[in-house]
Amino acid sequence: MVGVIMGSRSDLPYMKPCADTLEKLEIPFEIGVVSAHRTPDRMRNYAKNADGRGLRVIIACAGCSAHLPGMVASVTHLPVLGVSPKKSDKDAVGSMIAMPSGTPLVYMGGGSEPDKNAGAENAALMSARILALIDSEICKRLIDYRNKMSDSVPYSCFE
Amino acid sequence: MVGVIMGSRSDLPYMKPCADTLEKLEIPFEIGVVSAHRTPDRMRNYAKNADGRGLRVIIACAGCSAHLPGMVASVTHLPVLGVSPKKSDKDAVGSMIAMPSGTPLVYMGGGSEPDKNAGAENAALMSARILALIDSEICKRLIDYRNKMSDSVPYSCFE
Amino acid sequence: MVGVIMGSRSDLPYMKPCADTLEKLEIPFEIGVVSAHRTPDRMRNYAKNADGRGLRVIIACAGCSAHLPGMVASVTHLPVLGVSPKKSDKDAVGSMIAMPSGTPLVYMGGGSEPDKNAGAENAALMSARILALIDSEICKRLIDYRNKMSDSVPYSCFE
Amino acid sequence: MVGVIMGSRSDLPYMKPCADTLEKLEIPFEIGVVSAHRTPDRMRNYAKNADGRGLRVIIACAGCSAHLPGMVASVTHLPVLGVSPKKSDKDAVGSMIAMPSGTPLVYMGGGSEPDKNAGAENAALMSARILALIDSEICKRLIDYRNKMSDSVPYSCFE
Amino acid sequence: MVGVIMGSRSDLPYMKPCADTLEKLEIPFEIGVVSAHRTPDRMRNYAKNADGRGLRVIIACAGCSAHLPGMVASVTHLPVLGVSPKKSDKDAVGSMIAMPSGTPLVYMGGGSEPDKNAGAENAALMSARILALIDSEICKRLIDYRNKMSDSVPYSCFE
Amino acid sequence: MVGVIMGSRSDLPYMKPCADTLEKLEIPFEIGVVSAHRTPDRMRNYAKNADGRGLRVIIACAGCSAHLPGMVASVTHLPVLGVSPKKSDKDAVGSMIAMPSGTPLVYMGGGSEPDKNAGAENAALMSARILALIDSEICKRLIDYRNKMSDSVPYSCFE
Amino acid sequence: MVGVIMGSRSDLPYMKPCADTLEKLEIPFEIGVVSAHRTPDRMRNYAKNADGRGLRVIIACAGCSAHLPGMVASVTHLPVLGVSPKKSDKDAVGSMIAMPSGTPLVYMGGGSEPDKNAGAENAALMSARILALIDSEICKRLIDYRNKMSDSVPYSCFE
Amino acid sequence: MVGVIMGSRSDLPYMKPCADTLEKLEIPFEIGVVSAHRTPDRMRNYAKNADGRGLRVIIACAGCSAHLPGMVASVTHLPVLGVSPKKSDKDAVGSMIAMPSGTPLVYMGGGSEPDKNAGAENAALMSARILALIDSEICKRLIDYRNKMSDSVPYSCFE
Repeated sequence: MVGVIMGSRSDLPYMKPCADTLEKLEIPFEIGVVSAHRTPDRMRNYAKNADGRGLRVIIACAGCSAHLPGMVASVTHLPVLGVSPKKSDKDAVGSMIAMPSGTPLVYMGGGSEPDKNAGAENAALMSARILALIDSEICKRLIDYRNKMSDSVPYSCFE
Repeated sequence: MVGVIMGSRSDLPYMKPCADTLEKLEIPFEIGVVSAHRTPDRMRNYAKNADGRGLRVIIACAGCSAHLPGMVASVTHLPVLGVSPKKSDKDAVGSMIAMPSGTPLVYMGGGSEPDKNAGAENAALMSARILALIDSEICKRLIDYRNKMSDSVPYSCFE
Repeated sequence: MVGVIMGSRSDLPYMKPCADTLEKLEIPFEIGVVSAHRTPDRMRNYAKNADGRGLRVIIACAGCSAHLPGMVASVTHLPVLGVSPKKSDKDAVGSMIAMPSGTPLVYMGGGSEPDKNAGAENAALMSARILALIDSEICKRLIDYRNKMSDSVPYSCFE
Repeated sequence: MVGVIMGSRSDLPYMKPCADTLEKLEIPFEIGVVSAHRTPDRMRNYAKNADGRGLRVIIACAGCSAHLPGMVASVTHLPVLGVSPKKSDKDAVGSMIAMPSGTPLVYMGGGSEPDKNAGAENAALMSARILALIDSEICKRLIDYRNKMSDSVPYSCFE
Repeated sequence: MVGVIMGSRSDLPYMKPCADTLEKLEIPFEIGVVSAHRTPDRMRNYAKNADGRGLRVIIACAGCSAHLPGMVASVTHLPVLGVSPKKSDKDAVGSMIAMPSGTPLVYMGGGSEPDKNAGAENAALMSARILALIDSEICKRLIDYRNKMSDSVPYSCFE
Repeated sequence: MVGVIMGSRSDLPYMKPCADTLEKLEIPFEIGVVSAHRTPDRMRNYAKNADGRGLRVIIACAGCSAHLPGMVASVTHLPVLGVSPKKSDKDAVGSMIAMPSGTPLVYMGGGSEPDKNAGAENAALMSARILALIDSEICKRLIDYRNKMSDSVPYSCFE
Repeated sequence: MVGVIMGSRSDLPYMKPCADTLEKLEIPFEIGVVSAHRTPDRMRNYAKNADGRGLRVIIACAGCSAHLPGMVASVTHLPVLGVSPKKSDKDAVGSMIAMPSGTPLVYMGGGSEPDKNAGAENAALMSARILALIDSEICKRLIDYRNKMSDSVPYSCFE
Repeated sequence: MVGVIMGSRSDLPYMKPCADTLEKLEIPFEIGVVSAHRTPDRMRNYAKNADGRGLRVIIACAGCSAHLPGMVASVTHLPVLGVSPKKSDKDAVGSMIAMPSGTPLVYMGGGSEPDKNAGAENAALMSARILALIDSEICKRLIDYRNKMSDSVPYSCFE
């Protein structure tokens, strides 16, 4: 199962492309609000218990200082994928791509509008690439998804 | 097995922390030069055959325009982790964190000197987090590695 | 003939100033969608066959990571001109102006609104400057175009 | 008492101007290593116990993603002052100046060389300004320090 | 008492979250316009008399070149907290985070819209953290404010 | 013939990779100093007479404000390729990639050290791509150059 | 007399605060369109004849690559003040603040909306500061203007 | 007479090209240290008395937050020219180019090494352009200086 968390409920529209893509690929997930600054204890418990509760990948979305993804990654050994709500939020990006040696965090990019958050969709697809290593059904659906994407691009601009 | 590729042989010292960490964690890997611009056919073949050859994760290091990691990710469905030799190479960073919807690429950061390339070490550790999902021995070594890291930080600055 | 390609059909309005200018200068061109990440095989075939099909210049428009222009330039020996849809897309700009030694790519700038994409109009004019070297009729039309542009700028702000 | 913490022992030389200035102003302080990513439990305990142990101000120095100052500020209600080792570390700066509503963190700047870390010296002086509100002796020494600084600037460049 | 000053009356809406938070915490404050460039004498007198008039903390908001907070800090020995109206005003940010050794100024961040100016709210909260050192009633209200903030974050995104 | 001009004699070492590559490809060229700010009349005459003197492509190198390439492009209708001595010279880059509609200028990038100025080598290669359209011998040598470049990249990092 | 020129008629609204302020100070001026790229001959003649025609200061406004102010300054020995239409146009700013040794150009800033272009108003005021050195009536009006500005700033935010 | 001031004695080497150029042009000047933050009273007195003491132009050099030039310009009505020691000091640049409406400050650029501070030399030359309006001897020397500069640029790179 994939755990999707975000720093504020206002990030939810930006994570819709993530949830939609996980649903299309039939990957089970849970989604909730975990704030590094407002709920530091909840964050710590979430990260400590993630593996035991059956999560395999954690997707964490946060803007502003974006401490959530890195702090979760420092407590769990599961793969953590960071997403920012807006790609123009340079402080959030910087906070995620400058992790020190020893605590890997993966930054998936952000978007410009909630519906077009490439980072959120790509975090779902990266989860699928990772889970495809342990689940051949997910692997088949992922390959199918990629073939359809390729076929859906006509050469003509005017069709 | 992890496939480690780089755009130029001159990137090799920047990837040493990656190779060293994979070795410490006893994760098998291969390493070679694949250039998006100088050897586009080699790049395509590498990505097309990666899954069949038994690779599970690909780590791709490239500076300048850094097209290598994204182009490899567009041809394979394996997880691809991008690293830049230097974290000051903003063009390479931008090329990796702005992937469009549909082709996920994860950016692991870069370093300031070859020996201290945090992105390279973290790419190895992220590979370990992913492979730990399918290999309990790697999982044990990863948890052990993290515990030792934590224990090696004394509170005193003067010890 | 000039080949105009773009990474997504949504880039079409940003390339209208390019098509309009090529038409004004009576330079034949074709236009289509070629995506580096979604259709890597189409991209490779397009670049490999461009010279044989009679193309003399390729104009490639791409945003986000903007791998399309550089990857096309790595497969063909024709001159390739890169355009970004929006000049504020710094990641696309960086991806184009940081090409490594050996694979020249020319960046023509971008715009702020589709109708005012200076990069798209200038890519058409640069194609004309190149084709003027082999076609004296295009040369005449280009010189005429430049003279008219100069004459159309009155000194008075209030006319 | 002022608590001075840093994310890595290698930050120590950058904090020397802080320690030197606290000593000059005769403000008692303790100093140690607390890492957000490598020692998350130590960080949490430090912040939770700071008030009870008699700390009045916490100065936290961290580079890279610089999660330490913000995470400490989310656990304690004491004033927390953030410092970066180098002012060129834009990611650390961004991580500190973009705190979300509710968790105030003050950023004091950084330096270019260990001996000239203006942020470290200024963090000591800001602690003195705060502690001067509760300790008239510190207030006197602070005013004296400022007068001497002003008097030590001759108009002539050549003296 | 907290002194809140701003460089222009047009900054007032951006400081509303500051005034609102000071009121919630029942911290007395005054608010007015003091411009570094248009009223340099008023600025100097304000800073010189602040301590004698009973101010304990000064919050100064300024955009553009943002000389106000730093110049006030150079004349008084009270703690000065700088706020910018908009966090996108990089020149104002730079002017505040690059203070030279000897004159500490604290930068609290800015916002994107008047109602959501995180820097203004956080400046009020930092004032509260400082004043809590000398006023146990403010300390109680601050701790209460923080507990309520934490409790007001449900895990569910859909409640 | 290719005309290579630079704003200052001190740019010469940065243009050596350009001259070397033109020589390898046996493309005739001339090289000299033309400064937009110090010798505005020389610049104007150079651009006005370029076509008549038999130049087919102009490569212009300039740092700082980098007005030279754009001003030359505004006077001649030949293709003009802009190069900056150092890729870190962001002002020069900005001056070249923001040309207004009507005056195309292509920016070829810059380097970090004189010997490794990718922009200078790529400007020579782009000249070759353009001249290959009118000279089949240059075309052959260009294709040969590219094949050799590809063959010179061994997969092994250790050979 | 002050000569006000702009690169495009569309810049006129951004220069209105300049014209308004010159009028308030009763400083005679002329205003017109001079484009560095579209009318290079007009630009050269304007600069060459400025002194002889009685101009004492030239204010030049240009966006995009903003070559106009620097090229005018290279041809005349009069003081030239550069203005950009929008302060967010970083390429124009860079082109003006990076002038090489020998050709001084003064950058006055830009605005965010036509009516609030601080750079345009300040260019008029800087002209007045310069002309006040040779015209005591302008000096009186300038001092009067500054006094009124200072008096027009009430301390109260709510008046 | 020109008044040259700097925020710290350590800025002196960066202002040497300014002093050298003023001497070459036989323009009388005085030079001294005036710090906005360490000596706010000296700064105010200097600016208030400048006109009465016979200064006609003030050149102010400051790094870091660079409040000196703008604060001097807010107290005097003489033309003030700002210089930064290093052009890479983006915070100082921002502090000078973002002046609000009403207080003009001109930014002259900075340098990369003390001997090559283009901003310092250009500030001297801009002073000369201003003083040439009231002193025909300075005007003659300025024109002579410009002619010699132009003549000293040979076309050949190898002479």
